[in-house]
Amino acid sequence: MTTSTSTISNHQVRLANRPHGLPGPEVWQFSDEPVAEPGAGQILVRISHISLDPAMRGWMDDVRSYIRPVALGEVMRAPAVGLVLASHHPGFVEGAWVTGLFGVQEYALSDGRGVRVVDPELAPLPRYLGALGITGLTAYFGMLDIGRPAPGETVVVSGAAGAVGSIAGQIARLLGARTVGIAGGAEKCRWLSEDLGFDEVIDYKLDNLRPQLRRAAPDGIDVYFDNVGGPMLDSALARLSVGARIVLCGAISQYNSTDGVTGPANYLSLLANRASMTGLIVFDYESRYDEATKRLLAWLNDGSLTAREHVSRGDLCQFPQLLLDLFAGANIGKLVLELG
Amino acid sequence: MTTSTSTISNHQVRLANRPHGLPGPEVWQFSDEPVAEPGAGQILVRISHISLDPAMRGWMDDVRSYIRPVALGEVMRAPAVGLVLASHHPGFVEGAWVTGLFGVQEYALSDGRGVRVVDPELAPLPRYLGALGITGLTAYFGMLDIGRPAPGETVVVSGAAGAVGSIAGQIARLLGARTVGIAGGAEKCRWLSEDLGFDEVIDYKLDNLRPQLRRAAPDGIDVYFDNVGGPMLDSALARLSVGARIVLCGAISQYNSTDGVTGPANYLSLLANRASMTGLIVFDYESRYDEATKRLLAWLNDGSLTAREHVSRGDLCQFPQLLLDLFAGANIGKLVLELG
Repeated sequence: MTTSTSTISNHQVRLANRPHGLPGPEVWQFSDEPVAEPGAGQILVRISHISLDPAMRGWMDDVRSYIRPVALGEVMRAPAVGLVLASHHPGFVEGAWVTGLFGVQEYALSDGRGVRVVDPELAPLPRYLGALGITGLTAYFGMLDIGRPAPGETVVVSGAAGAVGSIAGQIARLLGARTVGIAGGAEKCRWLSEDLGFDEVIDYKLDNLRPQLRRAAPDGIDVYFDNVGGPMLDSALARLSVGARIVLCGAISQYNSTDGVTGPANYLSLLANRASMTGLIVFDYESRYDEATKRLLAWLNDGSLTAREHVSRGDLCQFPQLLLDLFAGANIGKLVLELG
Repeated sequence: MTTSTSTISNHQVRLANRPHGLPGPEVWQFSDEPVAEPGAGQILVRISHISLDPAMRGWMDDVRSYIRPVALGEVMRAPAVGLVLASHHPGFVEGAWVTGLFGVQEYALSDGRGVRVVDPELAPLPRYLGALGITGLTAYFGMLDIGRPAPGETVVVSGAAGAVGSIAGQIARLLGARTVGIAGGAEKCRWLSEDLGFDEVIDYKLDNLRPQLRRAAPDGIDVYFDNVGGPMLDSALARLSVGARIVLCGAISQYNSTDGVTGPANYLSLLANRASMTGLIVFDYESRYDEATKRLLAWLNDGSLTAREHVSRGDLCQFPQLLLDLFAGANIGKLVLELG
C-alpha cells in the first residue's frame, strides 16, 4: 500500500497556548498538512484511536518534569493506535496495527521507537490504550512493584472507576487484598462493586469521605493507590496503618488548579506510621512491558480482569471537549477517541 | 545502697494543660512526692541527665500517633540517664548507669523495660542521650535503612546542626556521599563545615534557600534527610533527582503551628522523579540498637564521627525554658539538662 500519500491531508490538534487552569478552546489550534512519505527507517501510521489521559495536562505546562513539555505549536502528544500504511522499517509490516505516542492527529510518521505491534484478534483495539496500554501497565507496576499488598491487606484506590484505578483495584483483588474503591456517582460505584468485585465502594459525592473511609477500612489502609490528590489524599493519610505504602500515580484534582497545588497537610502521618509515598512513572518499566502485557492479557482472557473503554467516535475536533470531560469525570473506564 | 528512700523528695515536671502552639509556662505543673521504694522486679534511678527532643511536642498533643500522648497530670515523658540507687531486678546492679524513658523528674522507678546500661568510661553520660542515644540511633537507621546513599550521591540534611541532623550528615559522609547541611546562623554553619566535614553548608537565614540549594546540589538531591518540614521541604522537593529518597524524620517548623500543618505543595515532585518519602520511628529498630550503638561508638572512638552536646546545668525548673530554646534553635548538637 505504497500509494502516494502527498495528496492526503493530515488533520492535527496543536498546542497554541499554555493553559491556565482547565484547557479551554483557546489553547488549541487545528492544522492540516499533507501526509509525508516515510523516509528510511520510518513508518507511516493512520491513527484509529487516540487516548485521553489526565497526565496530558502536565505535558502542557512549561515545567521540567519526567518528560519534556509539548512545545507551543507542536502536535499534542498522545498515545494512539493505528494501522501501518507504509513501512521502511524492518520491525513493522504494512497492514500491522501498532501503538505508540503518535499524537493527536490522523497520520503519524514514526521511527519505530516506543512503538509496539498489537493484535486486534486478541483484544479490541481501544483496549491497547487502556488495560493493555500505558494505563494498564501503570496500574500493574504501581500495584505489584510499589503497593505490594499482602493477602488480606486493605487496598484503597482513588479514581477507582478511571482507566488506571479500575485495573489497579482488580490487580489488588487478584493478589488477595481487600479492595476499597473511591469514585464519584452511583453508576461508577455500582460498576465497581457489581462488575469489578471491589469489596467496598465509597461514593465521595454522597457523603463526607472520612466517616466512609473509617467504615470501609476499619483496620486502616495498607496500600493507597492515589490518582486524585487533594483532600482525598489527606483523608487517606489520616487512616494509614503502620508500614503503609502510598502509590503516587496521579493527582487529577490538582492538575487544573489555578492557585497552585495544595500539599497534603496530613503528610506527617507518613512519619507516625512509618509509611512511604512513592512516585510512579510507567515509562521506567519499558523493559518489562511484554511480561506485564502477557499477564494482563491472560487475566482478561480468563475473566479475572474486567476492562471497559469509554469510546467516543468522531473526529479530531472532539479532542478538546473530551479532555474536559475527562477532568469532569464523565467517563467510566478508559476514555478513547475513535476516529471514523 | 538500700537506704530508706521515703524521706527523699522527688521533684517532677508534669503536663498540666495541652499546649496550643509553643508550650508556655501554663502547660506545666511542678510537683513533689516522696521517692517510693522499688518493688519486686523494679529499679530506682536517680536521674542525672534529661534529654530535650523536638518529638516531645508531639507527645503533648492528644492525638493518635506512634506512641500514646502524655496524659494530663502525668510526669512529662523524656529519655534520661541516671544512676541505679536500688535494684530488685536481676538485670541491673546498684551503682550502674542506665538510660531509658525515665521522664522529667529527679527519681524514677522502672521495671527495666527499654532500659539499657551505659558505661561512663566509654563516653560522657550526656552522649548516651545524643550520638549514642535515641537521636544517634535515629540518624543511623534513617540514613542506612531509608536514605541508603551510594558513594558520590548528594545528601542534604535539614536541621543539620541539631542532634539528629549532625549525626545523619556525618554518617552520609562516612558512606561516601557528598553532604550538604542546612542550618541557621554562622556559628552552626561553621561547625558543620569545619568540624563535621560537610561538603557544603547552607545558612537558610542568610539568603533564599532555593538558589543556595541550586548551587550546593547542582545535580539534584539524591537523599533528603528532613528534620524541618515546611517551606524547606518544598525547596528540597523542587530539586530532587530521579529516584531520590526523602527520610521523613521530623518537622520542627510545623510542631508549634497554631493553624495546622502546611503540607508540601511540591509533593508531586515525588511523582515526576519516581522518588519516595518514608517516615522513620526509631523505636521500630530496638532489636538492632546494640549493633548500631557499637558502630557509632567505634566511629566516635576513631574520630570518624564528632558528637557535641549542649549541656545546660541546673534543676528541673529549667526544663520548660530549655524546650522553648530547642524550638528556637538555640542549641548546637544535642540539648541536655544536667541535674546538679
